[in-house]
Amino acid sequence: MANDAKLGEFELIDRFFAWSNSAVPRPDVILGIGDDAAVLRLPPDTDLVAAVDTLVVGRHFPAGSDPRSIGHRALAVNLSDLAAMGATPQWATLALTLPSADRSCGLRALGDAHGVASVGGDTTAGPLTISIQVLGHVTRGSGLRRGGAQPGDLVVVTGTLGDAGAGLRLVLDQVSTDDRNVADELIRRFEYPTPRVQFGCMARGIANAAMDLSDGLAGDLPKLATVSGLAAHIDVGRLPLSQALRSLVPLERAREWALSAGDDYELLVTVTPARVDDLRAAASRLNLTLTVIGEMHRGTGVSWTLNGLDFQAPAHGYDHFR
Amino acid sequence: MANDAKLGEFELIDRFFAWSNSAVPRPDVILGIGDDAAVLRLPPDTDLVAAVDTLVVGRHFPAGSDPRSIGHRALAVNLSDLAAMGATPQWATLALTLPSADRSCGLRALGDAHGVASVGGDTTAGPLTISIQVLGHVTRGSGLRRGGAQPGDLVVVTGTLGDAGAGLRLVLDQVSTDDRNVADELIRRFEYPTPRVQFGCMARGIANAAMDLSDGLAGDLPKLATVSGLAAHIDVGRLPLSQALRSLVPLERAREWALSAGDDYELLVTVTPARVDDLRAAASRLNLTLTVIGEMHRGTGVSWTLNGLDFQAPAHGYDHFR
Repeated sequence: MANDAKLGEFELIDRFFAWSNSAVPRPDVILGIGDDAAVLRLPPDTDLVAAVDTLVVGRHFPAGSDPRSIGHRALAVNLSDLAAMGATPQWATLALTLPSADRSCGLRALGDAHGVASVGGDTTAGPLTISIQVLGHVTRGSGLRRGGAQPGDLVVVTGTLGDAGAGLRLVLDQVSTDDRNVADELIRRFEYPTPRVQFGCMARGIANAAMDLSDGLAGDLPKLATVSGLAAHIDVGRLPLSQALRSLVPLERAREWALSAGDDYELLVTVTPARVDDLRAAASRLNLTLTVIGEMHRGTGVSWTLNGLDFQAPAHGYDHFR
Repeated sequence: MANDAKLGEFELIDRFFAWSNSAVPRPDVILGIGDDAAVLRLPPDTDLVAAVDTLVVGRHFPAGSDPRSIGHRALAVNLSDLAAMGATPQWATLALTLPSADRSCGLRALGDAHGVASVGGDTTAGPLTISIQVLGHVTRGSGLRRGGAQPGDLVVVTGTLGDAGAGLRLVLDQVSTDDRNVADELIRRFEYPTPRVQFGCMARGIANAAMDLSDGLAGDLPKLATVSGLAAHIDVGRLPLSQALRSLVPLERAREWALSAGDDYELLVTVTPARVDDLRAAASRLNLTLTVIGEMHRGTGVSWTLNGLDFQAPAHGYDHFR
């Protein structure tokens, strides 16, 4: 109904969805973009795994963000969801709403890195919004669930926490530093998060439960504990914090962001103590830090301590409507 | 980042995505809403079929539309895409952007009608936008394509054309009538389109090519002809027009809307003359009108005639960026 751009829908789709169509034909894509729907073939004895996430300007990324970062993050948050299932991502569809037609997206590099084929999409005019659905598969019955934690499991996280929150605050000029390397590293963690796809696949059959940290540990861990029907205890002193974050803000603030700032897209995993070394070996092959931060118990709720004393964690993580 | 609503994300998801979770557990949904991603099981020897479409306020529906109609249409346009592949819809994921939290959607009735389970979703604040991805399956290798038309095929459409365009113009007060029944019928065709899912499934193995009519015949048929590597000829005098549309506007205007107004979500199918009676029998079992409007030829492009004379069809159908 509006009439605010120069490119036709087909040109836009060509441009935005070309991201991995340049690759050789894939036997798993029977019919890709250009028909009414995509036709895709799963390997034998696998289950389909599907995730969807939307990013909206002014809410998930600041107005004026680099379109490459927006595209990267939109795909990364979905790949991170598949990583948390231990699934192999294969295909993606994209629903883009654009205020105008002259933008470019950062989907290609990340899609190529994980072998994800763009198989469908839809572009409309409107306030900048990007919805991506990633489809993948996992060996039948082997998907990692949030609800699989067992009493006595260790609670483990990949990488470091709080960096993306710091990066966002640097972008928004809510905090600053003279150290350009520190700023660049933290901003990159916000703008170009790395979904832990390979680690998720390797954790299948080792970990008992997994989820990805999108809203912050204080918001996400209670969900895992609740669906597992267990309590969790976390030693806040063990939270993995990067050197960059530690040099930017005092320790107390760094811990606060690690708990509640969100957007890290690290994996939260529970594993029986007897298998934690197998998990460490997997992480080590990927040059990925792995940190035990607590354990699961019978009971309900999440308790937090610091230096042996009760610690008041933020009540909840990031919730778009609060 | 904004803070403009009263409900938390989980309450919203509970409300919007409950649409068919009330049903009994389904063996094809291994893991539904509540984990990082959905885990779904396809029947043996099937291919996965995936479609995505987005509706944006002010572009695909007028501001102030009944939320039930918006929800219905968002799901219907995707089901229509699967219908055009001859696929069976099974699951849907939903990405909703809402200006506020106090809305209700019309997804449940349509989802239930087609046995579609809601298996994932994402709700954010922002200008009203709804993206739905429908997933389904089709017997391996049997999906209907746009590119399968053969020289000599008849071109066939389901139902009547132009009604939804008339309905939209009634909603927008661009046209009016004193006959409330006529207005209601045409507005219903715009607000609550019926995707031809069952007919699409039945046409598999009979039709050579299929697509759904979302942008209008004049915009959509050239796409089918191009990917089939053929020309098409259409007799504009044969376009199926409803009594309601005929009573609302002069014949010339009715034909114009049938060709270019879009939003009808009828199926466009090509079939060898020897099989057209099989297709008629399928339509008849569904109480669905089927009309032969032309045929496919060797060559390129689409030609239109009316009463044996060349007819100038609108250059293209609905294109959101023009």
